Amino acid sequence: MINYQDFFAERAQLMQASDIREAFKLTENADIISFAGGFPSAEYFPVQEVEEIVSELLASSPGIALQYGPTEGIAELRCQVAELMSSKGVRCSGDQVLITSGSQQALDLIGRVFLNPGDLVLMETPGYIGALGALKAYQPIFEGVPLDEDGLRVDVLAQRLEELASEGKSPKLLYTVATFHNPTGVTMSMERRRHLVRLAEKYRFLIVEDNPYEEIFFEGEPVSSIKSLDTSGLVIYLGSFSKIFLPGLRVGWVTAERSMVEKLAIAKQSMDLCGSTLGQKIVSTAIKRGFFSRHIPALRFSYRKKRDVMLTSLERFAPEGVVWTRPQGGFFVWLTLPERMDAKVILSEAIHKKVAYVCGSGFHLDGGGHNTIRLAFSQNTEEQIREGVRRLCLVLKENLGGREVGVARAV
Amino acid sequence: MINYQDFFAERAQLMQASDIREAFKLTENADIISFAGGFPSAEYFPVQEVEEIVSELLASSPGIALQYGPTEGIAELRCQVAELMSSKGVRCSGDQVLITSGSQQALDLIGRVFLNPGDLVLMETPGYIGALGALKAYQPIFEGVPLDEDGLRVDVLAQRLEELASEGKSPKLLYTVATFHNPTGVTMSMERRRHLVRLAEKYRFLIVEDNPYEEIFFEGEPVSSIKSLDTSGLVIYLGSFSKIFLPGLRVGWVTAERSMVEKLAIAKQSMDLCGSTLGQKIVSTAIKRGFFSRHIPALRFSYRKKRDVMLTSLERFAPEGVVWTRPQGGFFVWLTLPERMDAKVILSEAIHKKVAYVCGSGFHLDGGGHNTIRLAFSQNTEEQIREGVRRLCLVLKENLGGREVGVARAV
Repeated sequence: MINYQDFFAERAQLMQASDIREAFKLTENADIISFAGGFPSAEYFPVQEVEEIVSELLASSPGIALQYGPTEGIAELRCQVAELMSSKGVRCSGDQVLITSGSQQALDLIGRVFLNPGDLVLMETPGYIGALGALKAYQPIFEGVPLDEDGLRVDVLAQRLEELASEGKSPKLLYTVATFHNPTGVTMSMERRRHLVRLAEKYRFLIVEDNPYEEIFFEGEPVSSIKSLDTSGLVIYLGSFSKIFLPGLRVGWVTAERSMVEKLAIAKQSMDLCGSTLGQKIVSTAIKRGFFSRHIPALRFSYRKKRDVMLTSLERFAPEGVVWTRPQGGFFVWLTLPERMDAKVILSEAIHKKVAYVCGSGFHLDGGGHNTIRLAFSQNTEEQIREGVRRLCLVLKENLGGREVGVARAV
Repeated sequence: MINYQDFFAERAQLMQASDIREAFKLTENADIISFAGGFPSAEYFPVQEVEEIVSELLASSPGIALQYGPTEGIAELRCQVAELMSSKGVRCSGDQVLITSGSQQALDLIGRVFLNPGDLVLMETPGYIGALGALKAYQPIFEGVPLDEDGLRVDVLAQRLEELASEGKSPKLLYTVATFHNPTGVTMSMERRRHLVRLAEKYRFLIVEDNPYEEIFFEGEPVSSIKSLDTSGLVIYLGSFSKIFLPGLRVGWVTAERSMVEKLAIAKQSMDLCGSTLGQKIVSTAIKRGFFSRHIPALRFSYRKKRDVMLTSLERFAPEGVVWTRPQGGFFVWLTLPERMDAKVILSEAIHKKVAYVCGSGFHLDGGGHNTIRLAFSQNTEEQIREGVRRLCLVLKENLGGREVGVARAV
C-alpha cells in the first residue's frame, strides 16, 4: 500500500480545513438557522439584469466573452474600476488595476509576490482568517494587533513598531479590513487611518486594505479608504464585486502602484492564465448600464433592515452579560459572552436548538476569543434572524444560569 | 522616492513575463497572421447553446449559479466528470474530482501541495512552459527528458532514474502532456505509457498527466490515458473544458486519489475560496443536455481540416531542410529548421512579412531549440493558415539562401 501523504510537501502537512469552512457545512441543513456563512443574500441577485446582459454579450461579442482573456483582466473593466476608485478619492488609471478571482486570489498573489519566509505580517486579531490562510502558504510570521470599537489599535501598533525598530526589524506588511471589519463589524476611525499611513511611511511597510464591504453602509457615507490617504504608494487596495453584485462570478480587483500590478500580473499568469472572461464582461456591462447606481442603494436599504432586526432581537432576547457590536455597515455582528463561557461548547447545544454561528476563536491569531461569536445577518430573512437570535439567546441564557456576570467590552 | 521593487519577495524578483505571453500580444495586430497563441477557435463557440443554458439556469437556480459554491466544485459537475473519466477507462467517483479554474490552477495547486524546495521535477523538453511557470514558484529543480515522434523518451528516463537511484535520489513528480503534446504535437505510444507507469511504481514518483487535447483527435481514437493504466494511484490527471467548450468559463479538473483531492481542496480554499459557479453550472448543464456528444465530433472535423491545410501548405511551400511533425490531434505543428538558423532572428523578419509564431527555445528547459518553431493551427481560418504558411516559408527560404542544408529530425 502506498501512503499518499508521504508525497505531500511540508507546507501541505500543516494545511487544515478551517473552522469556518466546517461551519459552512451546517448551512446545508435546512432546519438550522445559520448565522455562520457571510454570504450575500441570493434574494438580491439581479437575475433579470444578468439575463439581459448575457444575451447582449452573446449577441455582440461572444468571441471575447467566452475566450481566454488578458491575465490582468479585460482592459475595459480595468478602466471602469479605475474610474470607480477615482470617484472615491483614489486617483488611478487602468494599469494600476489588476482583476482577480475575488479578493481571495489577490491575497494569494500578494503572498507570492511580497512574502519571503520569515517576513513579519501584522493583522487585526480577531481578523479575517481567509487572509491568514492565503498568506500562510508563504511562511511569514504573523503577529496580531488588537482592535476596539474604532478599529485597529494604531496606538498599540505604533508602540510595537518602535519596539521592532529598536531590534532592527520591521513588518513587511499589515493586513486590515478597516471598514465594517470581518469578523467584528467595527470601522477604523479617520484619525487612526491617517496615523496608520504615517506609520507605514515611517517604518516602510505595506498596508493591504481589504475593502469588500465598503459600499454596504447604513448610516451615511463611511470614512474614506486608507488608500485615498496614501501618497507614497504603500497601500495595496483590494476590492470585490462579490458583496455588491454576484460572488459566483468571482470578480475582484487590486489597486496598487503600477510596478506592483505588473509583478502581480506575472505571478497571476502562472496561477490561472486568466480569470473568467464571461464574469468580467458581465460586471463590465453592468457598470456600463449604470446598474450599480440603482442596485447598491437598494442593497444598503435591505441589509440595514436585517442588521436592525438582528440588533433589536439581541436587545430583546440577550441575557445580561452578553455584549455586541453595532456595525455601521457590512454583514457581521460580534458577540462577546462572559469570560467563563466557551462558544465552542455552546455551539453544539445551539445546533441542537437549530441555530448556528462561527466561534470567534477561529478568528484569533493567539488562540484567544473563546467567549466570542460571529453572527452574519446577511443571508437570512428578517423572520429567520428574529427566530435565530431568539433560539441562540435561549441557549445562552441556559448556559448563564442565574450566575453572576462580569462586565465585558463589545470588542 | 520609494523603490517598490525592494518589497518584492525573492521569488518575485525572478518572475518574468514569458516569451509566449509576449508573442500573444502580436495577435492584437489585425494585419498579422499569428500562429502564436494556441487558443481554441471562437468560431466554434456554441453561442446559441450557452444562451439557452444561461436562461435555463437563471430561471431554475440563480441562487446557486450566482452564489459562492463549494471549494471542490459543485457536486453535480464532480460526479459528471467522474462518469466521463470512467467512460474512458478511469474508474473513479465524484470525490476523486476537484474542479479547478482551468488546468493552470491545478498545476499551481499541485506545486503547493506536493513540492518542497529542491524537489526534483521531470518534464518533457521541449515541454509546456505554463507548467514550468506554475511549479517554479515552489522552487523545485527541473530536469528535462527528451522526446521523439513517439513522445517522451521513456528509455532515457529509465536510465536517468537508475542513475538518480544510485545516488539515493528520485524525482517527486514527472509532468507530461502525453497526448497531442504542447508544443510538438506528438503522442506517447501505449508501450511507453505502460513502461512509464511501471517506472513510477518502481521509483515511487507521481505522474502529472496534463490532457487538455485528448478529445481533439483526427485519426481514430487516441491511445488511452496514462491514468487509465494506473493501479497504484500515482497518476494525477488534469482535464479541461477550455479546448472542447469555452476557455472563458475557466473550468478544468483534477482526477486523483481521494486523499490527494482532499488536500488539494484545502489548498484551493486559500487560493480563491471557490471557482466560478456560473461557469461550472454552464458546463454541468451542457453535459446534462448531451451537448458534447454533438459538439466534440464537429470540433474534431473542423480542427482536422485546419491541420490538413497547415500540413499541405507546408508541403507545398516549405524550403528543403525544414522538417515538421504531423500531429494526430490537438492544436500544434512543430517545425525544425536547419541547425544554423535562429528562429528568434527570423521572427522579426516574419513579423515584418505579417506572420508570427512562437520560438521553440522558450519551451526548452536547457536553452536549446534555437532552430525550432511552434505553429498553432487552431485559431486561424483555413485561408489564413494557407497564406500565413506561405509568408512564413518565404521568409525561411530567404534565410536559407542557396546554402546547403543538413538533414534534421522533426522532433
